Amino acid sequence: MNYGIIIKVLGNLLVFEALLMIPASLISLIYRQNDFYAFLISILLTAIVGFIMSRVKGSYKKMKAKDALAIVAIGWLLASFFGSLPFAISGSLPSFVDAFFETISGFTTTGSTVIKDVEILPKGILFWRSFTHWIGGMGIIVFTLAVIPTMGISGFQIFKAESPGPTADKIVPRIKDTARILYTTYIVITIIQTILLVIGGMSLYESVIHTFGTVGTGGYSTRNASIGAYNSTYIHIVITVFMILSGINFSLYYGLVKGKWKEVIRNNELSFYLGIVLCAGLLIGLNIYTRTDGYKNIGLAFRDSFFQVSSIVTTTGYATTDFDLWPVFSKTILLLLMFIGGCAGSTSGSVKVIRILVLIKLVKRQVAKIFHPNAYIPIKIDGKVISDDIVTSISSFFILFIIIFVIGILVISLEGLDFESTISVVATSIANVGPGFGFVGPTRNFSSLSAFSKIFLSFLMLIGRLELFTIVALISPKAWKNER
Amino acid sequence: MNYGIIIKVLGNLLVFEALLMIPASLISLIYRQNDFYAFLISILLTAIVGFIMSRVKGSYKKMKAKDALAIVAIGWLLASFFGSLPFAISGSLPSFVDAFFETISGFTTTGSTVIKDVEILPKGILFWRSFTHWIGGMGIIVFTLAVIPTMGISGFQIFKAESPGPTADKIVPRIKDTARILYTTYIVITIIQTILLVIGGMSLYESVIHTFGTVGTGGYSTRNASIGAYNSTYIHIVITVFMILSGINFSLYYGLVKGKWKEVIRNNELSFYLGIVLCAGLLIGLNIYTRTDGYKNIGLAFRDSFFQVSSIVTTTGYATTDFDLWPVFSKTILLLLMFIGGCAGSTSGSVKVIRILVLIKLVKRQVAKIFHPNAYIPIKIDGKVISDDIVTSISSFFILFIIIFVIGILVISLEGLDFESTISVVATSIANVGPGFGFVGPTRNFSSLSAFSKIFLSFLMLIGRLELFTIVALISPKAWKNER
Repeated sequence: MNYGIIIKVLGNLLVFEALLMIPASLISLIYRQNDFYAFLISILLTAIVGFIMSRVKGSYKKMKAKDALAIVAIGWLLASFFGSLPFAISGSLPSFVDAFFETISGFTTTGSTVIKDVEILPKGILFWRSFTHWIGGMGIIVFTLAVIPTMGISGFQIFKAESPGPTADKIVPRIKDTARILYTTYIVITIIQTILLVIGGMSLYESVIHTFGTVGTGGYSTRNASIGAYNSTYIHIVITVFMILSGINFSLYYGLVKGKWKEVIRNNELSFYLGIVLCAGLLIGLNIYTRTDGYKNIGLAFRDSFFQVSSIVTTTGYATTDFDLWPVFSKTILLLLMFIGGCAGSTSGSVKVIRILVLIKLVKRQVAKIFHPNAYIPIKIDGKVISDDIVTSISSFFILFIIIFVIGILVISLEGLDFESTISVVATSIANVGPGFGFVGPTRNFSSLSAFSKIFLSFLMLIGRLELFTIVALISPKAWKNER
Repeated sequence: MNYGIIIKVLGNLLVFEALLMIPASLISLIYRQNDFYAFLISILLTAIVGFIMSRVKGSYKKMKAKDALAIVAIGWLLASFFGSLPFAISGSLPSFVDAFFETISGFTTTGSTVIKDVEILPKGILFWRSFTHWIGGMGIIVFTLAVIPTMGISGFQIFKAESPGPTADKIVPRIKDTARILYTTYIVITIIQTILLVIGGMSLYESVIHTFGTVGTGGYSTRNASIGAYNSTYIHIVITVFMILSGINFSLYYGLVKGKWKEVIRNNELSFYLGIVLCAGLLIGLNIYTRTDGYKNIGLAFRDSFFQVSSIVTTTGYATTDFDLWPVFSKTILLLLMFIGGCAGSTSGSVKVIRILVLIKLVKRQVAKIFHPNAYIPIKIDGKVISDDIVTSISSFFILFIIIFVIGILVISLEGLDFESTISVVATSIANVGPGFGFVGPTRNFSSLSAFSKIFLSFLMLIGRLELFTIVALISPKAWKNER
């Protein structure tokens, strides 16, 4: 490990984070609430520590793969540590474990909360809480663009045919261009959704907060009843549409702007993703309409079902109703959606649609091989052949996902919750969704879990967010072996 | 499809099945119970239909891979159909769906039952019920020996280094030898266990029945309380040991007889399998001893925990206590064991230890590749390199297992059971275990499920038993395309 450069980069990151806390502090100033001082102290502390760290000597030239892994993983942890200061200092979340959990849940765009009554918190604090989603979403874009391809592990290469190869020199010029395009897309979507929510009668403050939660696929709200607090079909539909849009590969929007309509329409991952949303929405809509008493009107059933399907599959986690009361069939579909997630190159978490698609094609090929044992049968996405290396890396990802999920339910089962809660607590954390079922249903929260479980789940969120291999590689003995 | 030869082979199979019903009919004759006439009719019907079918003209030379698939799959179904006649005709299970479920659960060595009170049934019927386990176990040995390698799909090749290749001519002489060795092993284990149970004070009749359930890793008992009905530590230990033995690759016993101790001791799958049993047994033992009131004595806790771990991991399904009342941590471990299963080349079901081992090594290799992107890192089992084709076929198997499991819980969730029951009903069926949790816990049964679910679960059991790909390939469109 080249500790010098690692500390230097992390220092710069903290200085940047201090700057990002300023908007929230201004909000608390505007609304004249006490949390302003908490922000002032947090900003100063973060900036000072960051500045000192950034003065450490280190050279970018010596950086190796494992240094990059360490920067990403420790960076996310450190940002969550300092990001939790406003919660802890303001007294909004007096327990530091709670404050840390809430912040890492924000940065990883999970949206699981330990706050029982969110409506009594100061406005600056709630702004910062949701802003972490938006920053996290940005961070993921950088991560999938710059870090993942250099590791060559996750099969993410396929999300963009012209994506850069593993040589660092080649990446830099292209990354800057691509990043600019993706950031612009992210910001444009943010602005449009905010305007549409304001038009629907939501206050500007709440519109911004719910937009952060939507485009970052996070799910923090200013209301205890989440989006269910707004009795407006218009608002429900706007958020449904923008959740779906935020789960799409952002580079496709650039394709649209460039007029490459055909490519976008023929994109395999996009059609499969929209197909999943459509099927799941229809099945759940019919199920809750016919099997529960709450829906006199099939339109309302579909409004709620499509909202919830979009919220879960994109790993956002907003709710318009207590879906924990839905029939087991609907809940099972929602649970399965947690294991799918949105498209690669979006801000959503979990396995991602493209991987599911490749895995299904892999099984199909294996069946075909029974009939043609010696034939060469390629796996194609968007008409292009996917190399065996990528297919293997995708299978490995899926297997590792299941292994971590299994370890997760073993550890969390020590809490003694019922089965449904145990499974959904773990699934919702590793997939960065937010709420689950039972004990962590949409009307409840994570506050009564033990401190140990909260810290464990914080790590699960981070592992999921960083495409598993980042953390797993970093804690493997190989990363700590001295090599020449 | 070459219908001629398929019908002919199936006809021979039925004639053979009619012969296999004779021992049960003799039991009912000895005990002078009414079920004798049910057997007489069943034997005649099965034999006549079988004889007629066996007269159809067909040539073995024309047989193709898909004909073999069809024979195996339809054979298992047909044997279950005719095998259920004694249950239906004797009135023990008046509903034909129930009788079919019970029989296929027997032949697939699952051991899930729809019988509420097993103790009131005639002795001949109970003998036949358990004998299906033993026959099923034999069937699996033939299947893994003769059919699986010709399909080249499941990675089963690795279970025996000197196993035959995919050329049919080469197989025949070797298969006969290997089959003879494996059958001898199977019969010797059966005899030894029966004697040991009789020594423990169990009646000969019950000893034979519980031995069938153990060596076939099935789990049918003559008692409603399963092995819990016998208040004898000796009997619990004998059955624990023989369940563990029945989950080991049978070819290793031949190795032992031949004096190849070192090879057996160094066998990776065996050590991993025993390691899993040891860890799970210790964890559950400590958990139930410290967290429940039932165990005053740690020895009793370990007796029950090791019994249950062995029963579940080998997919047998016997119980000595109502493990559904155990803490969630213990139940979670048991649920996970259902997804592992015993060793390849045993009578146990599920994924199998060797596949889990290869998958873990695959993930480890993927992590190593992050640090050495261009290195060739082989995956080794017993010191031998596993080819990439086999690794891919094993990943595909695991992915297909998860896909079928997911489809299963979606379908069964329509029953409206709670989550825990839904998941365990599906897991226990596809993994050929037997009992599950909640609604299908060890003190309960499958009788109150709908006829649709019973038929669906019957297919799940068969899919699991025939290594997934047999059935999936057969229902794929490719199998029905006319090729020249």
